Amino acid sequence: MRIARFSIDGNVAFGAVEGDQPDQLVLDIIKGIPFADFELSGTKVPLSKVRLLPPVLPNKVVAFGRNYAEHARELGNEVPDAPFAFFKPSTSVVGPGDDIQYPAFTQELHHEAELAVVIGRMCRDVPRDRVKDVILGYTCANDITARDVQKREKQWARAKGFDTSCPLGPWVETDLDLAAAGDLTIQLTVNGQQRQLGRTSEMIHSIEDLIVNISEAMTLLPGDVILTGTPAGVGPLNVGDEVAVTIEGIGTLTNKVVKRG
Amino acid sequence: MRIARFSIDGNVAFGAVEGDQPDQLVLDIIKGIPFADFELSGTKVPLSKVRLLPPVLPNKVVAFGRNYAEHARELGNEVPDAPFAFFKPSTSVVGPGDDIQYPAFTQELHHEAELAVVIGRMCRDVPRDRVKDVILGYTCANDITARDVQKREKQWARAKGFDTSCPLGPWVETDLDLAAAGDLTIQLTVNGQQRQLGRTSEMIHSIEDLIVNISEAMTLLPGDVILTGTPAGVGPLNVGDEVAVTIEGIGTLTNKVVKRG
Repeated sequence: MRIARFSIDGNVAFGAVEGDQPDQLVLDIIKGIPFADFELSGTKVPLSKVRLLPPVLPNKVVAFGRNYAEHARELGNEVPDAPFAFFKPSTSVVGPGDDIQYPAFTQELHHEAELAVVIGRMCRDVPRDRVKDVILGYTCANDITARDVQKREKQWARAKGFDTSCPLGPWVETDLDLAAAGDLTIQLTVNGQQRQLGRTSEMIHSIEDLIVNISEAMTLLPGDVILTGTPAGVGPLNVGDEVAVTIEGIGTLTNKVVKRG
Repeated sequence: MRIARFSIDGNVAFGAVEGDQPDQLVLDIIKGIPFADFELSGTKVPLSKVRLLPPVLPNKVVAFGRNYAEHARELGNEVPDAPFAFFKPSTSVVGPGDDIQYPAFTQELHHEAELAVVIGRMCRDVPRDRVKDVILGYTCANDITARDVQKREKQWARAKGFDTSCPLGPWVETDLDLAAAGDLTIQLTVNGQQRQLGRTSEMIHSIEDLIVNISEAMTLLPGDVILTGTPAGVGPLNVGDEVAVTIEGIGTLTNKVVKRG
């Protein structure tokens, strides 16, 4: 199932996305929330009539760095032995179609396409064989980065945590199992031109590794998001660009870069 | 005014702390929340009869590193030209009297006493002369750190973001102005023995600097917390230790270190 979050007539709801033709998708409104037992209402609205929102409102986004060897090397970095993580705050999250604001404090804004794992239940110390049970599903993310600031500042709160630096969407795909999620094509285009292309099978540390690693330290909450690293090909974004992350079996997350007003 | 958050008979409320004798403090229960106009109810309960909670529930905690020169040098680090920040997640926050759980993934848990600034209103791009208007008040913080993990992992999500790594309290003091907050004694004891002693006037970057710096990048929300760095004297904590942060004009935040169960 593809679960979207959207607003219609001032109300916010979740809905199951039905259909195959991109311009003919329909939302079946969910009664309740997707983090507990829920039912489809049978009330349907065309997706074209609503505004899609970020598919979840994460309490925290945990992002892993340098999890694709070729990407680590393209920035002149060593491939780390163990995973390492940083946070993107809830205030950085925007949804599909929302603007990415180019901040005034950077002259080098970069895109980073990533597979995002959405946590479905509160958990800590997750054993490897239970990782599958704490995942609600998967969505696309763009880990927007002020690369010059990242190089200057030892910790990345500003470089990777500014407002609009975490586009998520378009929806959460819940039908992929761990094996399938670990072998998907991930692609990023800018104005239709391909910039990043990789497969999630190239991750150095698997989805299981990452969730075991972070849940050993901290409680994960329903709606929290784990970003799993970006493949090679990161590069600059400019005001006016349209950037799109497409992950096989999930969908496409598109955002436009605007000058921060 | 000293604003505490507490639970009594299963309910959570804010209260104004009245009295001078530590064992005779009384809470005047607040009608409403301290982030908007509020009144004191006149209903009073002895502080000894309630359980104090973290004085705020931050959406995010933004912590600045190496903001006291002597502390930067004691760890063999350079004093940075510009501020740099990292996040501690909401799941790391505990209150006065709560246990600090010694995680299994570290063998070197350290204390770091810090002045915490509590944000009172939603803000972004705060000009220097408006910083005073976005601050609700000040409290004590202990930026508990897995020092060995911090040295190993390039970003500090695990080293400084694990559950119970952010004790805050005992309450928010709202009567300090910026000049007063910038010149307070800050002290930390372990089992009654002094380990850290400094003055907030030793900060390299002032409270104004820090809030201008971070709000340039991201929206701050009511209840968000800014940690302003730790003075020299950081050192190890062991299971069974009682660690206390005392800041002049605010109060004392005491926590005990326990083995993570």
